[in-house]
Amino acid sequence: MRFSKRPKRCLTLVIVLFVGFLYVLRTYRKSTSETYSRVYSNTKIYILTATYPRLVQRAELTRLCNTLRNVKNIHWIVCEDSESKTNLTATLLARCGVPYTHLFAETPPFARQTPNMPYWTHPRGVAQRNRGLQWLREVLVQGHDNAVLYIADDDNTYSLDLFEEIRSTRRASTWPVGLSGELPWEGCVTLPDNRSHVSSMWVAHNPQRPFPIDMAGFAVNVNLVLEHPTAALDYNLPRGMQESHFLLGLGLKHWSELEAKADGCQKILVWHTRTADPVLASWRRLQAQGVLAPPIQDPV
Amino acid sequence: MRFSKRPKRCLTLVIVLFVGFLYVLRTYRKSTSETYSRVYSNTKIYILTATYPRLVQRAELTRLCNTLRNVKNIHWIVCEDSESKTNLTATLLARCGVPYTHLFAETPPFARQTPNMPYWTHPRGVAQRNRGLQWLREVLVQGHDNAVLYIADDDNTYSLDLFEEIRSTRRASTWPVGLSGELPWEGCVTLPDNRSHVSSMWVAHNPQRPFPIDMAGFAVNVNLVLEHPTAALDYNLPRGMQESHFLLGLGLKHWSELEAKADGCQKILVWHTRTADPVLASWRRLQAQGVLAPPIQDPV
Repeated sequence: MRFSKRPKRCLTLVIVLFVGFLYVLRTYRKSTSETYSRVYSNTKIYILTATYPRLVQRAELTRLCNTLRNVKNIHWIVCEDSESKTNLTATLLARCGVPYTHLFAETPPFARQTPNMPYWTHPRGVAQRNRGLQWLREVLVQGHDNAVLYIADDDNTYSLDLFEEIRSTRRASTWPVGLSGELPWEGCVTLPDNRSHVSSMWVAHNPQRPFPIDMAGFAVNVNLVLEHPTAALDYNLPRGMQESHFLLGLGLKHWSELEAKADGCQKILVWHTRTADPVLASWRRLQAQGVLAPPIQDPV
Repeated sequence: MRFSKRPKRCLTLVIVLFVGFLYVLRTYRKSTSETYSRVYSNTKIYILTATYPRLVQRAELTRLCNTLRNVKNIHWIVCEDSESKTNLTATLLARCGVPYTHLFAETPPFARQTPNMPYWTHPRGVAQRNRGLQWLREVLVQGHDNAVLYIADDDNTYSLDLFEEIRSTRRASTWPVGLSGELPWEGCVTLPDNRSHVSSMWVAHNPQRPFPIDMAGFAVNVNLVLEHPTAALDYNLPRGMQESHFLLGLGLKHWSELEAKADGCQKILVWHTRTADPVLASWRRLQAQGVLAPPIQDPV
């Protein structure tokens, strides 16, 4: 009797230990990740960032990388305004630690800014964002890949909560944007008795636009992007019409169709921050005198 | 014979499984953390941030929080310019996920900026940084707590690599700062044959200062702070002299004593970025007409 019981006990003990081990590993894994909606945690977010060469570019991309490193299940599409991939962006992306795709698309000559033009003369990032949309349509399969697209500039400020709001976008969603449109915040408004439905838009400029909304204030399900292969941005549009043009192209008609995020448009989770051009008066003076800066390994 | 062998085998199997379990857990733990200098990974960094109320404050602190969440073994001391702790800062810090201490210190009336003053009329953050230094001296024990202090403004941009450079500071260390002092970068320079020794300082303004260096460009071991209980910042100093005053107070005499970080001052790992004041022309116009913004849960 005892002879045959021992191996059984041993086997039971081994099984119990093994199950215990799996349980501890699972708990450990959970404790290191954020708790958020389990339903949507498998939905990937494609974050499309247009960037262009300037003195603060590396700083801006560094700061955005630091933010995105905190977000699970994302893919960062960075498209730069250049005739080929630059070392600066390539190195930064390779070191960042976030899954990414590095693209480039040069702004056509007719749409280039010159130093003396007001910054809004030409829309920015059109060629770069369109290149990113093209990549999405080449890589993803309609109906198969459940994912969300968010167009995120490299100078805005993003709360980590924003990404978990974005993730549950069924068709197209919206939320208010801080420091945008010459207001402390602008965007969607809901009524206290129905926080899931956008009842109005709080906006100062052209409120009659189909989507009076900033690029930082909406996300769309990638299925919409795949279903509408021509939806894109365009250089030949009046100021403030890029967002409406893109969303109309995706088959949406009016802001009231958008899903209200951020606790029914009650929270500011993204800010339209703008980094000031650095003051380089001393540098210009030294350059005029022919003074060279000491050599340094990395560019600024 | 067989009767006594079985339990032994069983015990061996249990031990092997248990050791295996510990090993897997350890590997899992390691894979989630960064690999960096093992020698100094136990050294805590105290990051002292002075902040003041303004429209971009929540955005700036959000962005800095997102960066600091990536850094192990830090303690964030945030001291705000107010007569008591504000809800905005308290909520943000509580949700950030970084170990922190929330302090406040009001700027004395004689040193307050008024809207029409040039931004450099009075030094900023003196009372707040001094309150942070006081806290360090109250809480840490000389010779017992091995830690490093870094004074980090809420608007600068920090590469994650910077913090691992800072961590190994023995007395006081330095590195170049991007977009600072009206230059693309300014700060320490080393020679190719000796990257561990600062040979000169590349700086446009007052190069004759004992420490011609930006606040973002140095870190000190907290033992120095504890050994010199009166070292502090001061409102009554000429522009650009805060850093020299503080470092002289810590018993240092000259920039050549500083330890060279960032691969011998060869890399830019911090940028003196400045966020532009938001344009609120439409808001001012609406306010003048008595128009109110819709109510919202969180302030901007």
